[in-house]
Amino acid sequence: MADTPLILASSSSIRLELLKNAGVSVTAVAARIDEAAVRMALAQEDAKPRDVADTLAELKARKIADRNPAGLVLGCDQVLAVGDDIWSKAETVDEARDQLGKLSGCMHHLHSALVLYHDARPIWRHIGTAKLTMRPLGEGYIQAYLNRNWPEVSYSVGAYQIEREGIRLFSAVEGDYFTILGLPLLPLLSYLSLRGFIES
Amino acid sequence: MADTPLILASSSSIRLELLKNAGVSVTAVAARIDEAAVRMALAQEDAKPRDVADTLAELKARKIADRNPAGLVLGCDQVLAVGDDIWSKAETVDEARDQLGKLSGCMHHLHSALVLYHDARPIWRHIGTAKLTMRPLGEGYIQAYLNRNWPEVSYSVGAYQIEREGIRLFSAVEGDYFTILGLPLLPLLSYLSLRGFIES
Repeated sequence: MADTPLILASSSSIRLELLKNAGVSVTAVAARIDEAAVRMALAQEDAKPRDVADTLAELKARKIADRNPAGLVLGCDQVLAVGDDIWSKAETVDEARDQLGKLSGCMHHLHSALVLYHDARPIWRHIGTAKLTMRPLGEGYIQAYLNRNWPEVSYSVGAYQIEREGIRLFSAVEGDYFTILGLPLLPLLSYLSLRGFIES
Repeated sequence: MADTPLILASSSSIRLELLKNAGVSVTAVAARIDEAAVRMALAQEDAKPRDVADTLAELKARKIADRNPAGLVLGCDQVLAVGDDIWSKAETVDEARDQLGKLSGCMHHLHSALVLYHDARPIWRHIGTAKLTMRPLGEGYIQAYLNRNWPEVSYSVGAYQIEREGIRLFSAVEGDYFTILGLPLLPLLSYLSLRGFIES
């Protein structure tokens, strides 16, 4: 039995790479939604960070599923939370320096949400959470890190890429690596396999 | 302060890639030791799987450190254990099919050992352990998996590459991703940073 092609409602190159590495037949389509507006609206309702990630993943999946009603569509979102505060990606080096300075020596959470649509309806959802602790970083170190890694780190919230040199910023990482990269692969593959969408 | 160059006493391309991705200045040198003979000798002494990994990592580090007495040398080994039994890499497709059949539906451990030498003496060691559970695999699925992935999987003990399609074989993975890939990166980087071997 052939695998059902998956449509990834995301422009994230690492998510696409993770799925391709796992041998999943997948194409990517960017789902353009106004994430900042949704986040702000949800923040005003005191939504929890994990619920914000779930809502954004759902919105992206639904948008692409509307255009591909017969398809299998995966929406994804990742939220970085410091306590109940949700952070957005840094847009300038100054913001990145500020974010790294605030994360330095502290613990934060990454919530990675997945929502799967089939036949234009949500059929499965999952939220994975990881807990990361940054070691205390000096100002000079942060500046040198950004000199070496900007603008690449601007694509990641928190201004670090843990799959590259960013791993050196951490003293402790608890949680699934795929969740940290923004796509909890294992529960997704289990579900796809269970439902016969991929060979098993 | 410049990073101290690290000599990786291993021919494993993924270990080299992990260190390079993390921005570590590293070169690789294969440490040729008779692993099979060491494993067999240790098995006869009822050595625990984690101790076998530690001993092999130490032997590799020492061999390269003897040739580079002033250097910073990292020895690594990974052992796959089913209970107290240690497995070796499959040499033929038939052996790989047999290994996957035995791992199917069961839990096994991966022990990844690191031993660091400096000035020809061991200065640090670490063993990370991960617990992996494979879902029940049919014979047809195993054969199709090997058709697609042999001989690449022959380089990994257990005949799967979890960083590729092999992730689809698993129902549960507990433990650090870097430990599963054979190089527990986080404790290594913490130590290198603490001792000033890499910038921090």
